[in-house]
Amino acid sequence: MINALARLPGIGPKTASRLTFFLLNAPDELADDLLAALGELRSGIGYCQTCFNITAAGRSECEICASAERDGRVVCVVEEPLDVIAIERVGAYQGKYHVLRGALSPIEGIGPEDLTIRELLGRVQVGGIGELIIATNPSMEGDATAMYLQRQLAQSGVRVTRLARGLPVGGDLEYADQGTLLRALLGRQDMAG
Amino acid sequence: MINALARLPGIGPKTASRLTFFLLNAPDELADDLLAALGELRSGIGYCQTCFNITAAGRSECEICASAERDGRVVCVVEEPLDVIAIERVGAYQGKYHVLRGALSPIEGIGPEDLTIRELLGRVQVGGIGELIIATNPSMEGDATAMYLQRQLAQSGVRVTRLARGLPVGGDLEYADQGTLLRALLGRQDMAG
Repeated sequence: MINALARLPGIGPKTASRLTFFLLNAPDELADDLLAALGELRSGIGYCQTCFNITAAGRSECEICASAERDGRVVCVVEEPLDVIAIERVGAYQGKYHVLRGALSPIEGIGPEDLTIRELLGRVQVGGIGELIIATNPSMEGDATAMYLQRQLAQSGVRVTRLARGLPVGGDLEYADQGTLLRALLGRQDMAG
Repeated sequence: MINALARLPGIGPKTASRLTFFLLNAPDELADDLLAALGELRSGIGYCQTCFNITAAGRSECEICASAERDGRVVCVVEEPLDVIAIERVGAYQGKYHVLRGALSPIEGIGPEDLTIRELLGRVQVGGIGELIIATNPSMEGDATAMYLQRQLAQSGVRVTRLARGLPVGGDLEYADQGTLLRALLGRQDMAG
């Protein structure tokens, strides 16, 4: 048990021992609840066959893909299911998603075939999509993935946009890193009247 | 001496006492050097009469304003001299500056007349400026100041731009705050081919 727990991220052998001894002495319900939750997690999670977001097992489409209230003409392309949660939390996006399940990384040997890029291009080919918002991370890998997608989609006739880069809200210019400041300077925008 | 030192930011009475006793026992040169440096600081700093950046005393113009290599057609408007240093560090900006010496803040009672806004409008009226880049902080006060300047300059014929807002470079979408993510989403830009 200690060895199994110690393999979880952020849990070392000491914490693992402490948790194990806690569970030994804990009321049976707690261990039973954990067991049930873990079993559900294992059997109860599937992937949406359209956008590859996490979904309840046995369902071929996630709630967002299945919703008639979401605008299917706009698709936001993210790396991970957690990014979907982050954008949903903002509450301003009404379109659908496509989860790449990672980002291109030659160093880690992750190529286009390891992501759901073929499936994304397939969705575009089916038609009905007017804009793809590339929302990969503002990192080296995210940038490489965005560039690759943009090239693949250049002939598709679909508008390809990317999340704005620049100064984060509420920050202080003086503390912005040089890369961010450079982006903010080069990407400066006309103020509306 | 202890009381004087304790009034500096970040230095409490304990540190002040320690510093004072250190100086008591320190070689004379150290105290002399400090004294000289402090005197120079007091008498040696002035403000550029054009851009209001810090400059050496006795000089009416700072190095940037006096430089023939800087493009006077572009003026970057910042809140503080430290912001000039931050933008200079990026090494990509070749224009000149205007230091507002603060930002509008009704709560703190800082109005337009407390800043160097009149002087900025005067520089615009003289002519020769084609673009003003508003680089106030991405904060409430910075936003209010930018909006105010934009309104004041609407009839001037000068292009008024603002530093881009969005995701900082190297970040992770999942950790971006909601305000930043909203800005990034609303400000999304077409990817170039």
